Amino acid sequence: MRPSRRAFDELRPVTLERGVSKHAEGSCLVKFGDTHVLCTASLEERVPPWLRGGGKGWVTAEYGMLPRSTGDRMRREAAAGKQSGRSLEIQRLIGRSLRAVVDLVALGERQITVDCDVIQADGGTRTAAITGGFVALSECLAWMRARNMIGDKVLKDHVAAISCGIYKGTPVLDLDYAEDSTAETDANFVMTGAGGIVEIQGTAEGAPFSEEEFAALMALARGGIAQLVDLQKLTVA
Amino acid sequence: MRPSRRAFDELRPVTLERGVSKHAEGSCLVKFGDTHVLCTASLEERVPPWLRGGGKGWVTAEYGMLPRSTGDRMRREAAAGKQSGRSLEIQRLIGRSLRAVVDLVALGERQITVDCDVIQADGGTRTAAITGGFVALSECLAWMRARNMIGDKVLKDHVAAISCGIYKGTPVLDLDYAEDSTAETDANFVMTGAGGIVEIQGTAEGAPFSEEEFAALMALARGGIAQLVDLQKLTVA
Amino acid sequence: MRPSRRAFDELRPVTLERGVSKHAEGSCLVKFGDTHVLCTASLEERVPPWLRGGGKGWVTAEYGMLPRSTGDRMRREAAAGKQSGRSLEIQRLIGRSLRAVVDLVALGERQITVDCDVIQADGGTRTAAITGGFVALSECLAWMRARNMIGDKVLKDHVAAISCGIYKGTPVLDLDYAEDSTAETDANFVMTGAGGIVEIQGTAEGAPFSEEEFAALMALARGGIAQLVDLQKLTVA
Amino acid sequence: MRPSRRAFDELRPVTLERGVSKHAEGSCLVKFGDTHVLCTASLEERVPPWLRGGGKGWVTAEYGMLPRSTGDRMRREAAAGKQSGRSLEIQRLIGRSLRAVVDLVALGERQITVDCDVIQADGGTRTAAITGGFVALSECLAWMRARNMIGDKVLKDHVAAISCGIYKGTPVLDLDYAEDSTAETDANFVMTGAGGIVEIQGTAEGAPFSEEEFAALMALARGGIAQLVDLQKLTVA
Amino acid sequence: MRPSRRAFDELRPVTLERGVSKHAEGSCLVKFGDTHVLCTASLEERVPPWLRGGGKGWVTAEYGMLPRSTGDRMRREAAAGKQSGRSLEIQRLIGRSLRAVVDLVALGERQITVDCDVIQADGGTRTAAITGGFVALSECLAWMRARNMIGDKVLKDHVAAISCGIYKGTPVLDLDYAEDSTAETDANFVMTGAGGIVEIQGTAEGAPFSEEEFAALMALARGGIAQLVDLQKLTVA
Amino acid sequence: MRPSRRAFDELRPVTLERGVSKHAEGSCLVKFGDTHVLCTASLEERVPPWLRGGGKGWVTAEYGMLPRSTGDRMRREAAAGKQSGRSLEIQRLIGRSLRAVVDLVALGERQITVDCDVIQADGGTRTAAITGGFVALSECLAWMRARNMIGDKVLKDHVAAISCGIYKGTPVLDLDYAEDSTAETDANFVMTGAGGIVEIQGTAEGAPFSEEEFAALMALARGGIAQLVDLQKLTVA
Repeated sequence: MRPSRRAFDELRPVTLERGVSKHAEGSCLVKFGDTHVLCTASLEERVPPWLRGGGKGWVTAEYGMLPRSTGDRMRREAAAGKQSGRSLEIQRLIGRSLRAVVDLVALGERQITVDCDVIQADGGTRTAAITGGFVALSECLAWMRARNMIGDKVLKDHVAAISCGIYKGTPVLDLDYAEDSTAETDANFVMTGAGGIVEIQGTAEGAPFSEEEFAALMALARGGIAQLVDLQKLTVA
Repeated sequence: MRPSRRAFDELRPVTLERGVSKHAEGSCLVKFGDTHVLCTASLEERVPPWLRGGGKGWVTAEYGMLPRSTGDRMRREAAAGKQSGRSLEIQRLIGRSLRAVVDLVALGERQITVDCDVIQADGGTRTAAITGGFVALSECLAWMRARNMIGDKVLKDHVAAISCGIYKGTPVLDLDYAEDSTAETDANFVMTGAGGIVEIQGTAEGAPFSEEEFAALMALARGGIAQLVDLQKLTVA
Repeated sequence: MRPSRRAFDELRPVTLERGVSKHAEGSCLVKFGDTHVLCTASLEERVPPWLRGGGKGWVTAEYGMLPRSTGDRMRREAAAGKQSGRSLEIQRLIGRSLRAVVDLVALGERQITVDCDVIQADGGTRTAAITGGFVALSECLAWMRARNMIGDKVLKDHVAAISCGIYKGTPVLDLDYAEDSTAETDANFVMTGAGGIVEIQGTAEGAPFSEEEFAALMALARGGIAQLVDLQKLTVA
Repeated sequence: MRPSRRAFDELRPVTLERGVSKHAEGSCLVKFGDTHVLCTASLEERVPPWLRGGGKGWVTAEYGMLPRSTGDRMRREAAAGKQSGRSLEIQRLIGRSLRAVVDLVALGERQITVDCDVIQADGGTRTAAITGGFVALSECLAWMRARNMIGDKVLKDHVAAISCGIYKGTPVLDLDYAEDSTAETDANFVMTGAGGIVEIQGTAEGAPFSEEEFAALMALARGGIAQLVDLQKLTVA
Repeated sequence: MRPSRRAFDELRPVTLERGVSKHAEGSCLVKFGDTHVLCTASLEERVPPWLRGGGKGWVTAEYGMLPRSTGDRMRREAAAGKQSGRSLEIQRLIGRSLRAVVDLVALGERQITVDCDVIQADGGTRTAAITGGFVALSECLAWMRARNMIGDKVLKDHVAAISCGIYKGTPVLDLDYAEDSTAETDANFVMTGAGGIVEIQGTAEGAPFSEEEFAALMALARGGIAQLVDLQKLTVA
Repeated sequence: MRPSRRAFDELRPVTLERGVSKHAEGSCLVKFGDTHVLCTASLEERVPPWLRGGGKGWVTAEYGMLPRSTGDRMRREAAAGKQSGRSLEIQRLIGRSLRAVVDLVALGERQITVDCDVIQADGGTRTAAITGGFVALSECLAWMRARNMIGDKVLKDHVAAISCGIYKGTPVLDLDYAEDSTAETDANFVMTGAGGIVEIQGTAEGAPFSEEEFAALMALARGGIAQLVDLQKLTVA
């Protein structure tokens, strides 16, 4: 029995609310149960130095948690004077995942920064950020299309992400914090709408895991991500 | 005519929503029109080193803006490696304002940190943070009272804040960004429910101002803060 | 009775000594009793990035305290790796105050940096820094005029500053440290030679204060600043 | 044809030289072809604050690259003032991987820090660091056993790591830099001597990849890691 | 002919003014011509962690330059976020030089920090800081003796310092900035009252120098330091 | 008797191995007994901002120690967020020493950075770094000559360095850690092949030293450096 009484292959209630920011070109408030992440996409007419003059654009991401988004208050990263290794690792993952479905040449020499700020955390913040970040990015690209800044073909596919894990010996989908903190194995999957794999990260928290266990997690993830992509399609239209 | 068509002494629509955080002991999402600030109050059973062993508690505040809470994306302070002078100045103001209505001895040797994170900015974020921070703090103290950690008398009064300014020659209440960015004079007032002044900050953005002008701003502020305190009373109950 | 035996409306002995630096284009050693601040004005033929090409100049300030300018040795900010929030707040105030009397277009596309370093502190360092910083700035502008770099009209007025407070229930002018550390209310005023208000900062250290008390402080400040401006006129000639 | 003319399932020449440091309790210079990493294991009789008094030990890792270990000189991280996100991510991975085979309770309340410094880089530095770091760690534990500080059962298994990738459409084992920089998919595997999976990281550098492709990479990795573990057994004895 | 028209073995006018700080236990404003350094000695009843419980004290130094102490304004080190390599190197030298004449056991488990802040620079700031720092330190020890905190024997000797150099082919004593910036060779000497050498630093700025040239510099330094020690004796009494 | 049983004027076994880096334009692994330093020379076709457009090149150095190059593990400087004062001081010395034998105009507007990373430390790392850094620099210049980027005359002389000290009352050459940590006096000498002095640094660790003692150290250094230069000539050819 999962703490949340969900079935082993059941997502938490997921909502994707777009257009939540007065200022950003694209935005999405994504909720996976009690995990809430605000994603904004900001367009800038310049690219990083190493891309200048190449006619190619860039999509990058930044990730942060509000200090009391968690059970115990964390130190504010701005006060600590640096982003934690965990934050840097997560924002690199989000950026790579979103770039996997963007045609950077078709984007033109511009940068879109997707900020993912965790308002409230209950496990799975990085996968929620990818899933919601895609919606913010899509909205930003629609904003650009409406102004004839780009054509139709910048976005190559959908992309979404989910975590799975082995909880008390059973593979389960979409871990919440209660499960995540005791799971033996924890894996994050990023996949496209067409079912291609963009990123896999699996970690044995306790004993090592087997290929069979990993295959079971991947099957769960495939089902969950398909549902998330359906939801993205309803949201972005 | 104000850009928002408000009367010179009219507040923006203000809402104070408490209990918005699953984790924090107290929380409030405060909205002054399009300015939205999430305030959380976090209790810790320890005080800063310079207070240890003195039997006295502490209330402090931290302030931040999400990178795209503003019209142009700002650099993330955690990535920049430090809080800006503006952020530090504002969080010192919030902390002083809240401490003005707390009996730190009655609080006992504990610290409450009020985090004020600007989700969306449209002028007046610091005064919104003080007004909403008070609600988060009150909720935290109620949480403590319910657990018999403190008595009834920790909170000595209400405290709220508002900005005023001289916009196109006329003193007006509660500047939004369109007004704030062109106002000749800008002043922030922090007052208690009993009408005592906790903090005054007035700045000539253009030409110096006169005592008469300043008195007009203070009169406007007094009226606005009275309304905010009434709203706090309805919220905290 | 004030610890220094001064009358309630009596300034400490104030001296403004200009021309104290071999290298700086303008300089002033300002003393308010035992508070000694060295102010230098440095001219650079470039402006901050956000002003480039606009034909407008800039005046900015930096503030620091020598580690043993205070009763207890403070940590050197350069060793700590950052300026404190207090230092940043004060140097922002000094910069705003000086800019209030400078015609930045008449200055031309140049920057003047006024460094205010506290050699010895006994209360009121920020107001001493503004008062002395004005003298350093004036000397720098005279240096430029002597070289036909600017015309006569860069400086629009004098500017000076003073602190007032309520000490043992009585409003008093120009707090020294003994008064400042126990005052119930502390306020800083920045005014021009013509009597216009540039900046007001009032803080209740203990109980909130009333409008009447604040008006008494402002009246004291007005008298003190008039004396300081007279002294500036004698110094700069 | 691979640039190095290796077969698709052929490791580069791998050497594990232990006992290379005069000072460290354990050390290993690991070479995977032209990738050379110096690993040292340092014992300290104290644990991180959050473990104190729990009777449990800790194993952690730090990773760095010498500035000219790479084709172009990189900025020295100590001069830049921080470790890059990539370095932090890699050292977190090394630490997790090594802890997976250590009984932290049997280790006792002590910390072993495994420093992995890249002397020369030619792809696969993180997997070389895990493979060589295990040898340094083993030597450190042998040093402790020889002094009766611990018993026989601290190390639960071997652990080694290898990268695989899809290079010009073909899955290949142990990517060197020439392959890594153009591979469509890049995956790192960490496994134990018993064949359990400790960590999987797969990234689509170009197009998304399929489950079948990923399975092929995992099969290659399994073969390569078995060889590395055999080599570890010959080295540590 | 030297730019200052001094003889080759002639010091600049040197003054040592003690008792210049209201707060510090010891202080000295030292002037070597236009080089002015304010030295304060601050007593603390604690030692660095690595000395705790050993019954031994410590003397350390910190060095800084005011931003406009130099011909061109330097960036404020506190704003830059760190002390420069030059500042760190100089403060380490000052600390070593002062410790050379202090009996740290007789001092007891306390720390004296000598802050040397350059008010105005014209060459030779580090040697002026050592010479004046000794006076501040002496005054601090006298302050302690007057309170029976220490006995008579803490100070073992005097210590002073001077720079010499080869200017246009001639060895000269006490370089000012005009000489220092063009000297072929630059050397700093730290010696005790008894004539023992504490520190020697010689650097070829242009062509390498010979042993004979170095011997000439050392002879000049010996004469200059003897004069400085005489002046210290007059100052401290 | 020296701990290593060497004669008072006997160097440790010294080896200079060049060509040790696959990537760097020049490299040298230098060993003075158990002190091992890896030196690489990296060529860049740009100079620091203050040299741009002047037709002159630059040679600079950076220095670091691997965390467990020492008896006790040191904190990694990249993790600490800054280079220590000692590291900065040493890399400034290495840079000055190497520049003393380079004709920067003949080098052309390019920069060579010599990285000196201590793999294992047993005293004398800075002098080993200068001696080996010269070899890496020479190899880099030979690489450039072979490509007709420069002519024959860039290198004006050889340069090498050695430490000497007074150990148990006797002047000895080339201190190892056992001697260095207890020596009364410690001095570093940098000299050219022609016998000119580039840099002298002498420090009294215990009692001050005399001119006679210092002369004895310099005589020892002269002999040792002559041997090191002979070895450099054999290495670089």
